[in-house]
Parts: sequence; structure tokens; C-alpha cells
Amino acid sequence: MKRYENLVAEIEASIRDGTLRAGDQLPSVRRTADSRGVSASTVFRAYYQLEANGLIRAKDRSGYYVLGKGGRLAPPESEVASRPRDASIELAVSDHVFQVLQSSMSRKVVPLGSAFPSPLLFPLARLGQFMASSAKSLDPWSTVDDLTPGSVELRRQIALRYLADGMQVSPEEIVVTNGALEALNLCLAAVTRHGDAVIVESPTFYAALQALERMGLKAVEVATHPRDGIDLDALERAIERHAPAACWLMTTFQNPLGSLMPEPNKRRLVDVLARHRIPLIEDDVYGELYFADRRPPPAKAFDGDGMVLHCSSFSKCLAPGYRIGWASAGRFARQVAHLKLTTSLSTSAPGQHALAGYLEKGGFDKHLRKLRQGLAKQQAVFAQAVGHFFPAGTRATRPLGGYFLWIELPPGVDTLALHAEALRSGISLAPGPIFSATGGFTNCLRLNYGHEWNVASERALKTLGQLATRSP
Amino acid sequence: MKRYENLVAEIEASIRDGTLRAGDQLPSVRRTADSRGVSASTVFRAYYQLEANGLIRAKDRSGYYVLGKGGRLAPPESEVASRPRDASIELAVSDHVFQVLQSSMSRKVVPLGSAFPSPLLFPLARLGQFMASSAKSLDPWSTVDDLTPGSVELRRQIALRYLADGMQVSPEEIVVTNGALEALNLCLAAVTRHGDAVIVESPTFYAALQALERMGLKAVEVATHPRDGIDLDALERAIERHAPAACWLMTTFQNPLGSLMPEPNKRRLVDVLARHRIPLIEDDVYGELYFADRRPPPAKAFDGDGMVLHCSSFSKCLAPGYRIGWASAGRFARQVAHLKLTTSLSTSAPGQHALAGYLEKGGFDKHLRKLRQGLAKQQAVFAQAVGHFFPAGTRATRPLGGYFLWIELPPGVDTLALHAEALRSGISLAPGPIFSATGGFTNCLRLNYGHEWNVASERALKTLGQLATRSP
Repeated sequence: MKRYENLVAEIEASIRDGTLRAGDQLPSVRRTADSRGVSASTVFRAYYQLEANGLIRAKDRSGYYVLGKGGRLAPPESEVASRPRDASIELAVSDHVFQVLQSSMSRKVVPLGSAFPSPLLFPLARLGQFMASSAKSLDPWSTVDDLTPGSVELRRQIALRYLADGMQVSPEEIVVTNGALEALNLCLAAVTRHGDAVIVESPTFYAALQALERMGLKAVEVATHPRDGIDLDALERAIERHAPAACWLMTTFQNPLGSLMPEPNKRRLVDVLARHRIPLIEDDVYGELYFADRRPPPAKAFDGDGMVLHCSSFSKCLAPGYRIGWASAGRFARQVAHLKLTTSLSTSAPGQHALAGYLEKGGFDKHLRKLRQGLAKQQAVFAQAVGHFFPAGTRATRPLGGYFLWIELPPGVDTLALHAEALRSGISLAPGPIFSATGGFTNCLRLNYGHEWNVASERALKTLGQLATRSP
Repeated sequence: MKRYENLVAEIEASIRDGTLRAGDQLPSVRRTADSRGVSASTVFRAYYQLEANGLIRAKDRSGYYVLGKGGRLAPPESEVASRPRDASIELAVSDHVFQVLQSSMSRKVVPLGSAFPSPLLFPLARLGQFMASSAKSLDPWSTVDDLTPGSVELRRQIALRYLADGMQVSPEEIVVTNGALEALNLCLAAVTRHGDAVIVESPTFYAALQALERMGLKAVEVATHPRDGIDLDALERAIERHAPAACWLMTTFQNPLGSLMPEPNKRRLVDVLARHRIPLIEDDVYGELYFADRRPPPAKAFDGDGMVLHCSSFSKCLAPGYRIGWASAGRFARQVAHLKLTTSLSTSAPGQHALAGYLEKGGFDKHLRKLRQGLAKQQAVFAQAVGHFFPAGTRATRPLGGYFLWIELPPGVDTLALHAEALRSGISLAPGPIFSATGGFTNCLRLNYGHEWNVASERALKTLGQLATRSP
């Protein structure tokens, strides 16, 4: 977060907890600048943002006054971990999920339920230049050389990014895939057999449930905290009871919660699983979308013996539609490569070359900085609109990265019904029940703030809030 | 085949069956031109080819004389159908196949065992132009719009190609995939459940066996004729005995045999399967590589009620490395699309656009004509070299398309041992046993003639022949 955003968040917190009340005068810009050790322009920017959100108002000559909670204040944070049923469950979720998701695909719908950020956030023209030059100069033999595990140069560039984040990952354990989803599926196939139990978070990414269902695996949903991720005590109990063959977890900016496991938790996770010889399939597709100063290390960073299969892609941070991802599959790299060879053979050669070229000299880090700043800002604006428009008793996560808010509406609101109603108003949302094998989270929804904030999105959130308020 | 190639084949046949013997004089060029109704230049070209192969010799002024079987004469055709065990078999082939295949991946090896034709046969530069322009002008929203089932324009172009071949296939039933292999795997997943039996040819494409193994399915191998494809009586018996959930067949230029099911057989195949409500997964990746005047219709052409899932790609005929294929999945199109969404989400958007553009105005048909002529010629040359260098008793297929010869060496030759020996001489081959769940075909091998005929390939075939002759 930028300095002014910190200041906005702090003043919001003071308004929320009643320290600042309607009518109170804020300290002057100069005084705040002095007391916080920031520039006057930072304070101006923060005050401007708070004013735009209807939380404070400038009066001529006399400074800034608090308008109170009537302004756009983000809702209080979600704080209670989920409490899934302690069972291993055979799945039948896919059809249901498809019905919900396909409704969000139309361009005409305000895509609050979308799984993707706005494609306008990405340097597609610049990428296109690399694609153009790589396609025109494609060495015919590269169509053979770049077969799975993939282009040597792309794997080297990926390994270099790990290195820049302080991790030693050999290009030898990297398998290039058609996006992270294929990587995750291949890893799951590499470490499980029909009928095995697999641990997932609760709520969890629906594609994990769909993969388990397709492969005849059982889901064990484990309690997960909206800020800190999976509950490790609950995880240990689940291991004892269900003897799972694998875990499939998102340790960083989990979908849908946005939770980020603290580093010590990630270390303990890796230790616990290593002790039980259980492979961890780590879905880290949002890892580059952090708002802090540095990338939170994935669990893979603490893996001493190759039991973590780290999966990611460029789809959410650089190149949507290119379908280039990878698995760093540790001791399972050979099995994953073999599975890739027998399921889709290889990943598009021109795409691999284009990305390798872009990573080398396209300006990836500069693009990422801009992308992260943009998403952090949008989170603030969307969260404030939720606080403003949604019914009293609404809670929301405030993730430190990614582009999802997880909204808990008051008990009794049925988000599947809300989804159907909202669609009739041209708005999509991702209702809570699609993120669970057992259909819980009926009063929850996932909200995508990765699209431009504009009149349409503001109106959509207002409509959603009204529908949710009218809800029984 | 071109006219002169027909003439070459006929004179070869006359030499092989003894009609023409060493020392016989061939009819003069003029007389042959008259009797065959072809131009003198066609006859000259044929005689030149036969001379180059060491089968005839020109004597000054007195015409052409037969040198006899010592010249380069293709081996006699394979004529006996396989006789697989009547059983449904759980599989454990994958590791073995990988050991064999990975050895063929090096550029340094003469790729007689390769599954791919030479990448030099394809208009990669021209394709690159379409890729360049599509990547540079990629509509950001196409990354959403082109999600599975895939780009509307590409699906339309594919449907137009079906139409040009006299088939009505709606773009609605087409799902764009990462090459045909993904299409085949998705189709298999759409129509089977763990433990089901699936009918395949004998010998069969090893990737089919690997797919069955991975998904916990059982293989029922059915007798297959090297020229006419699967034996339909044997198929009907296998259906009665094993109640298969699906068939996975290559009806046109089967891999590895090169067999082409005659049209009446394809009709009967579709009828039989429809009567039993058994879906046919039709792998048609070599369908465009025919040497005759028109494309042999796939079984899909005779499908009245959507039970044929027709899979193909551009990988063997246009764009290796791009990984763009499709399934026309009939009544299973929705399931296939759903499976695609949950396994790899979508196919590369820039690649889809590039191919759609190329298909519209890149000159695909012109390229294909050249490609087919080139492959037909190479088949003749490779087959003649096999006849020349390989031990007596060798038989070979003479497929009407594709780029594989299936070679039957004399009984007792062990092609797995030959494979290991050949590799030490820098030559790969695809030994027969990898094409069966039961490990038969020990004296057979698949030979790729889709690479340039040159000194290295000639020397490789000579070496192979010597090794095979020395073999016990």
C-alpha cells in the first residue's frame, strides 16, 4: 500500500471504531504531515480520497470535518474461521458451478462474479510485439525442442524469478503447462489414485472440487480463517482422521477468501505435511498481486525435500489468454511431465517464446508495480462501496493482495437467490455455496474488484446492496 | 499419387511378382505413353525414378532394361490382420513407452522413430505473419470471449472445412483444444467411468493406451488389418463379450499401421456402434495427409445421431507446436467443453486467432497439396530403401496417406533389442511392442518417412537393415 492509502485506512478505522465521530475536525494537513512524517501532498491525497468517499468534508478555511459512518466506509473485517463438516466427501458439484459461472460470461453483465481481472490491466500490445517477433522467427526445430517439459529459456526465466524472490528452484523441476489449472490437475493426478482423500480449504476454489470430482477423489474440507488461511490444528486432526493422499491449498491470497497464511504458518504447514509424507499442491496464481513491499514467500520456499508442487501462471498477472503456466513439482517433476505428455503433449511454442522474451526484457516488474497499485486502490474503493451500500451486519475480508473480496452478508441472506436476482439486473456475483462440497456459505459471496471502478460498477454495488437488504 | 508415381508403383509390382525379370526390356517411352494415355514426360519421370532406385537401367539407344529385385524395390505389402488376445486388460504401459520415446527426442538422432513429421514441411514463416498480426491487434476482451469452447471465428473456419469435404458440422459442437491429444482425452473422459472397458485397434496408438491407463479404464484390443483397419466382425464379437463404454479408433491412416478403413466399413462401423449406443472417439489427425484425389471421409461423415466424437488438429498438417486441435463431439459437446473448462480452462487466444486468419486467407489448400505430394514421394523412396536394405521376408504397409510405414521383420527379430542397438548408432525407431497392451508385435516397427530423405536417412536405413539381418 502507498503511504496515503495507509493514512486513509487508519482514518477509516478511527471512524469505524468511534474514535472520530461525525462533526469532529481532522488535524490540519501540516500537523498530520509532521506527526506522521509524511509529505503534505500525501496527506492531501488521503484527505481527498476520504472526501471522495463521503467520509469527510472540507469547509472553507476551517479544514476537514468527519461526516461519520454515513460515508463510504469499508465494512468490518471477517474474523471467524469456517467450520466445515469433518468428513471425506464424494463430489457432485460440477454442474451446479457451471450454471453459475456461465451466466457471468457475457460482456453485458457487470462482472462482479468473474474469476478474471479486467483484461485491460495487461500489457497485451507489448506482449504482442514479443509474440510477433517470436512467431516470425520461430525455429522449426523448436516445435520439437520445446516439447514438455517446455522451452529451456522460459524455464530459466521462471527459475530466475524464483531466485529474485530468494528461492532456489531448478529449471529441471519446472514443467510448462497450459495455465496453472492444467498444472494443478497434473500435479493432483501425479500424487493420487482413484478413491483417495484430498484436503482442501473451506471455502475452496471450485476448480479444486471439480478436479476431485472428475478424478474420483474425496474432499476433506478443513477450517480456514478469512485472514490467516487454513487452521493448522484442524489440518492435523484431519490428517489423523482421513489419511489424505495430498493437500491442495492456496497459501497466498486464497480464492475466494483472499487469506494469506503468515510465514510461520507456512513453515509449520510444510513441516507437518513432510512428517506425514503428504505432498502439498500449492496453488499460487495470485502470489505476484501483493500490495505490500515484497512477495509473500510461498510454502514452497520452506520445502526441504521436494514435497511441495508449486503451481502458478502468467494468466492473472501478465498474459490472460496465452495459457502459459507451470508446475515446480519437486520430486514429482518427472511424473508431472509424463502426465502432461499423455494429456496435452506440450504447450504452445510461440507463446512460450514470447513470454520468455518478455520476461527477459519486456518490463515485467514495472508492469507488476502498476498493476498492484491499481488493484490496491480498487480494493479500497470497492470495499468502501460495499460498506456504504450493503446491509448492516455485512462483513468483508480486506486481503493484502489479489482481486477478490469475500463478503459475509447477514445470516438469512441467500446468495444463490441473490445471484439469480442480480443476473436479472445485469450483474453477476459468485455465490458462497459454489466454493464448498457441502454447500455451506449460503450468506456469502465473492466479489471481483479487478475491473475498472465506474458508474456501472457503482450502480451494480448499489443494486446488490438493495437486493441484499430486501432479502429475507 | 501423381501419374508417374502410379506408373512407378505398377512397374515395381510387375518386377516383384516376376512378370518382369532381370534383363527384360521395358516398352519404349512412346509406346508406354500411348498405352497408358499419359504424356511422354510422365513416362520419362517414372523411368528416371525407377533408374534412380536401381531397378532399371538405360542402355544407349536401345531403351530401358530391368535390373531385377536387386534394385530398390519396396517390400511386399503386409496382409495379415493382427490376432490380439480376447480380453479386457488393465494397463501398465506408460513407463515403458516413455523410455522408448524420450530416446528419440534428441536432434542428433535420425528420427525414424519419431511421431512427428519434419517441422521443415510447414509454412511456419507465413503462419508467423498471421500470429504476429493477431497478437499485436488482440482485442483484450477476446481473452474472455475466446474461452472454451473457443474462438467463434476459428470454429467457423473448421466447420467450413468440414463443409468443403461434404460434411455438415455445426460450430456449436466444436470445442477447441490444446491439440488433438487433449481433445481425445477429454472425449474419453466424457463417455467413460473408472473401470470401463474401451475398444482399441491392435496395434494401437500408444497414447490411447496411456490415456486408458491413467483413467483406470481397461483396453479391449481388436484385430486390425494393415490395409483396411479394424475387423468389424471381431469388433462385433468384442462388443458382445466386453460391453465396452466406448471405442477409440483411427479410421484413416491409422497410427502405426497406416490402414484406411474403406467407406463401406466406416458406414457399418457407425451403424454397429449406434445400434449398441457406444460412442466412437475418432482420432483423425492424419486425415488431411491423403495421397489420392480427395479426402477419405471420416466415420463422422456417416453419423446420424451425434455418437461420433471426431478429433483432429493442425499439428500434423499445418502448425506443429501451436497446439491447436478440436473435438467435434456431437451429442457430447457440452460435457467435453465442461471437462476442458475444468482441466485447462481454454486454448491460447493468439494461436486461435492466428489459425483462424491463416485458414481464411493463408493458402492452406495450396500448402496441403505440396505437403501431400512431398510425403507421397518420400514414402516411395523410404519404402524402396526398406526393400533394398532390410532382410528377406520383411513386409511393409504402403499407406495411402500419413507418414508412417509399419514394418514386419522376419519372425524372431526383436525390435526392442533392435531399438537399443540402433540408438547406439544414432538412429531411433518405434518398436512394435509399445503399440499394444499385451506386448505383441515384437518383430514389428513403425518407421517415420516424414523427414527429408538424405544421406543420413539412407545410411540409417542401411544400418537398420544390417542390424535386423544380424538379429537372431
